[in-house]
Amino acid sequence: MFQPPRGTRDLLPEEMIKRQFIVDTARSVFEKWGFDPLDTPAFEEFELLTAKSGQAIKDEIYYFKDKSDRELGLRFDFTVPAARVISSNPNLQRPFRRYQLGPVWRYDRPGAGRYREFWQADIDIFGSSSIDADAEVVACACEALQKIGISNFYVRINNRKIMNAFLGSLKLDATDIMRSIDKLNKIGDEGVREELKSKKVNEKDIDSIIEFTKTSSIEKITKFTDDGVKELEQLVDKLKKFNVPVRIDTSLVRGLEYYTGSVFEIMQEGSSLTITAGGRYDNMIEGFGGKSTPAVGISLGVDRLMELVQLDLGKTRVDVYIANVDEKSKEKCVEIAQQLRELGINVECDVMSRPLAKQLEYVNTKGIKFSVVIGEKEMKSGVLKLRNMQSGSEKDIELRNLKRVLDVIRSV
Amino acid sequence: MFQPPRGTRDLLPEEMIKRQFIVDTARSVFEKWGFDPLDTPAFEEFELLTAKSGQAIKDEIYYFKDKSDRELGLRFDFTVPAARVISSNPNLQRPFRRYQLGPVWRYDRPGAGRYREFWQADIDIFGSSSIDADAEVVACACEALQKIGISNFYVRINNRKIMNAFLGSLKLDATDIMRSIDKLNKIGDEGVREELKSKKVNEKDIDSIIEFTKTSSIEKITKFTDDGVKELEQLVDKLKKFNVPVRIDTSLVRGLEYYTGSVFEIMQEGSSLTITAGGRYDNMIEGFGGKSTPAVGISLGVDRLMELVQLDLGKTRVDVYIANVDEKSKEKCVEIAQQLRELGINVECDVMSRPLAKQLEYVNTKGIKFSVVIGEKEMKSGVLKLRNMQSGSEKDIELRNLKRVLDVIRSV
Repeated sequence: MFQPPRGTRDLLPEEMIKRQFIVDTARSVFEKWGFDPLDTPAFEEFELLTAKSGQAIKDEIYYFKDKSDRELGLRFDFTVPAARVISSNPNLQRPFRRYQLGPVWRYDRPGAGRYREFWQADIDIFGSSSIDADAEVVACACEALQKIGISNFYVRINNRKIMNAFLGSLKLDATDIMRSIDKLNKIGDEGVREELKSKKVNEKDIDSIIEFTKTSSIEKITKFTDDGVKELEQLVDKLKKFNVPVRIDTSLVRGLEYYTGSVFEIMQEGSSLTITAGGRYDNMIEGFGGKSTPAVGISLGVDRLMELVQLDLGKTRVDVYIANVDEKSKEKCVEIAQQLRELGINVECDVMSRPLAKQLEYVNTKGIKFSVVIGEKEMKSGVLKLRNMQSGSEKDIELRNLKRVLDVIRSV
Repeated sequence: MFQPPRGTRDLLPEEMIKRQFIVDTARSVFEKWGFDPLDTPAFEEFELLTAKSGQAIKDEIYYFKDKSDRELGLRFDFTVPAARVISSNPNLQRPFRRYQLGPVWRYDRPGAGRYREFWQADIDIFGSSSIDADAEVVACACEALQKIGISNFYVRINNRKIMNAFLGSLKLDATDIMRSIDKLNKIGDEGVREELKSKKVNEKDIDSIIEFTKTSSIEKITKFTDDGVKELEQLVDKLKKFNVPVRIDTSLVRGLEYYTGSVFEIMQEGSSLTITAGGRYDNMIEGFGGKSTPAVGISLGVDRLMELVQLDLGKTRVDVYIANVDEKSKEKCVEIAQQLRELGINVECDVMSRPLAKQLEYVNTKGIKFSVVIGEKEMKSGVLKLRNMQSGSEKDIELRNLKRVLDVIRSV
């Protein structure tokens, strides 16, 4: 028996309705904040995907050749493809504010809530070097989380310039060391110590690094970089005006190597799982051969949100099932179904030639909220009974006044 | 400079807004007809993809191995993945009515309006062998086309059983011959004759085959199969009740080999391009190791619809731009933006620290319909001017009564 490939999954209607709610909500919030939709192909040139993102992600790319031996890879995020769009369309207006929704792929170890195909909902602003842009993407993401139904979250922020300056002061390779620091949440202080030791960092420097990751006071970090600290302070300030709960965290660096300034992660209190993350990456577009363009963005992890959010959206989108008593009444059912559809109601009729009892059993098991039975009696009287399958209550509705069905459905 | 891989494309906001309109409309019509959403991974086991679909499509699959040497391929349609879901979830309720929207991939020769990554919008009914199901998927697809804004279309229908019986009567390999007949629209009678000749079919049989494809009278085809003809007649009958413009076409076979009964294609008058197609495939699920399950479905070609549909949906989803006069008024702009967003209005503010004139230039070029300018005067008076950028007309709106913005926007 065939199954979805390892690390991937099917979404049956109940789960799919949940994902649609999250994605539709995100989209609507993104649009309210002035972001427009963009789409890019599922795969890109392998060279593009690996150019600016670092070794860690390179190992996770689904790589393949097409029949003309082009080297391709499935996208692992939306940032790289969007930056490619910007770099190769120099005439796009600045700022270019776009959102993108859909699947990305990483050949990672699958686990609880971790999939090799997973959905992201991204916003990015291209062309602005102002911290206003950093604040907007974070505040917009927070509103999306709220509207989706996530509460009790906070935003960790940091600025790569600070860690760069600090590691520079120790004469260490910042990129390499940050790759280890990024694992703090996963492997803890001791794990990071071990890894730094294996990278031949001396004990004293390791102590300083670990100590530095515990710093959250602006004073202590100011001595390493004015620039990064000023940006960090501005961002805190602007986020507070948007009522965003924000915490400075000097240990935060993010795994992808393309970040150059602000980095942020959103988490829920008491959990170590990141639900949303992003940052500023001012060098990527130039690195792809485009004109120098500052950029900042954030990404919501849709699959993780599906697990966190407590919602009962039902198992089906069908509002009303129209059951027939016999073959003779079937045609009338289809006719009524069409009229209800015109009103915007989601309607299902029998296509199995089942007896009435079996039809109603199906309605119950499927979780359809309302049913109507059409037989000779209803056709003669011109009155049908709309039954609420949960409460059992029934409403008489005249066939010539089917709009009332809408009122009943909406009142639930 | 990096580009999208050959045969794929980016959708910038203007095109993306068009695709969203088509996909959103299709989804809404599908739901009105009682279909629920399903999603499956972008790739499947290569063995699954090739099991029932024939050689022609096999050559078009993007094939790759993952890092554990699993043989995978990007899906080339939604029918095969959905059938896999049904076959491996035997407890799913019947009928199982699902829609699926998204990209599929075929390594085909790219050309005008032909992409290697393209979007489909599919509906299928699993578990019903009744022609009611065939009629529903076709009628629902037609309503989707209408709502999308496609007019002047008709449905060509045929039944594979008829061509099977006819080719059987000539003692020919039906699958192989149909592969040639499927090319009639592309290569014409002469092309098909040549191909059949190369397949060692004798002249007399070739004449009969070509003649048979011109038959549209039920009488002439009845002598080959009662079964297929009865189904064809029923389908015509039921489609007429749904006011679907339908034409019998015995030359229609469809390229994919999995079809077993009804086949249909929707085209526009005067064009030879298929915009929607599908059919019945009663053996696929059993073929995948599931329990025997009849199935019928239809697929809308979203990219082709994007080309056909005449719509001006604009270049941006932003409703209102709030321009600031100087740094001092910026904070007030953000405040007003937040209030308008609460009302469901899509709002953009400056993040480039641009002077007012540059901000308004941006509004014009981007095609944003309304703007507001906030300066000291507006902050003092508590009254802002909402400017219609196209007509130049302005409306005074009190800050304490921002709801009026909604009325003005909606009235355009």
